[in-house]
Amino acid sequence: MIYPKSIAALIEHFQKFPSVGPKSAQRMAFYLLRMPFSEVEKFAQSMIDAKQNTKTCEICFNMSSTSPCEICSSPQRDKSTICVVAETKDLIAVEKTNEYKGLYHVLQGLISPMDGIGADDIRIKELLNRLTDEKVKEVILALSPSVEGEATSLYLSKLIKPFGIKISRIAFGLPVGADLEYADEITIAKAIEGRREL
Amino acid sequence: MIYPKSIAALIEHFQKFPSVGPKSAQRMAFYLLRMPFSEVEKFAQSMIDAKQNTKTCEICFNMSSTSPCEICSSPQRDKSTICVVAETKDLIAVEKTNEYKGLYHVLQGLISPMDGIGADDIRIKELLNRLTDEKVKEVILALSPSVEGEATSLYLSKLIKPFGIKISRIAFGLPVGADLEYADEITIAKAIEGRREL
Repeated sequence: MIYPKSIAALIEHFQKFPSVGPKSAQRMAFYLLRMPFSEVEKFAQSMIDAKQNTKTCEICFNMSSTSPCEICSSPQRDKSTICVVAETKDLIAVEKTNEYKGLYHVLQGLISPMDGIGADDIRIKELLNRLTDEKVKEVILALSPSVEGEATSLYLSKLIKPFGIKISRIAFGLPVGADLEYADEITIAKAIEGRREL
Repeated sequence: MIYPKSIAALIEHFQKFPSVGPKSAQRMAFYLLRMPFSEVEKFAQSMIDAKQNTKTCEICFNMSSTSPCEICSSPQRDKSTICVVAETKDLIAVEKTNEYKGLYHVLQGLISPMDGIGADDIRIKELLNRLTDEKVKEVILALSPSVEGEATSLYLSKLIKPFGIKISRIAFGLPVGADLEYADEITIAKAIEGRREL
């Protein structure tokens, strides 16, 4: 026996998540089985809802409930600056600082030849298209200081220079090797404040 | 903004699980949003299924798809021995050894005055009822060597003695493959206390 089938299936699903091993998956499944049925239903529904209501913004490729997203369509945001990030979670990390009032561009990844991800696999072409809008005066590269982040920054700065637009990169208040996602708000705010022109 | 509402709700649900903090919950939510919709649906359904199809065995209080559970109703199991565990996951840990062929009794908790859990809050009465069956010759206590596990074992052994049934407790000592140098003092003390003549 070991597990009833339905519990085994549940554990298997939990185990698919990043950094969830067999023991954690088992713990989560048993925790769920102790929850009231109404709570389990709500959780299941919230997964469906989140998936169904999440769109990708046609301008900046942010995950949002609308397209264009709230940031792209807000009259309060400064349209002269575009902050380039790898993923939506990085955008959220920057937003949390409440320091940055410009627009974003979510690359949906970083150039990584090791993983077979080239320049055409991420939203670089779409970023360059946005730069033809003469409102854009500055591009801030907010990519993690990893090998992939460095490579992508370098590649982007070469492509953007011909546009005659100011290009900068967030300062390394971030410890090298760390993930933007895990940095605290103050560090990220400092890094934006201390950005340097490339 | 920060998060679209539906994503925020999803993150909140993930955060309810034990040892899942805000960052892990966010990571799991974003991982889920990248999954194909059919996968998300399957996961949501598997939670509902597991919750709906899981019963508590009326004899041993194991979680199972049937009641009595597969173990209690199996003719292959040795009905003379009952292994007492705190939770279903402990039962599964013992089952995985393939060494034990007797029955189980899941207490559904341990006595813990600090958490307001007394003897009446766990399935002790139901265990004692089972001992009136003269087929039962031995009770094995397989409770963790924690303060709560110790207290519950002591309490149970006092209650079970009058039945004239053999009562034992699983051995505590160094785990196989462990290094004496790295073991904690309590474990070493337990190992010495439980030494066996060769």
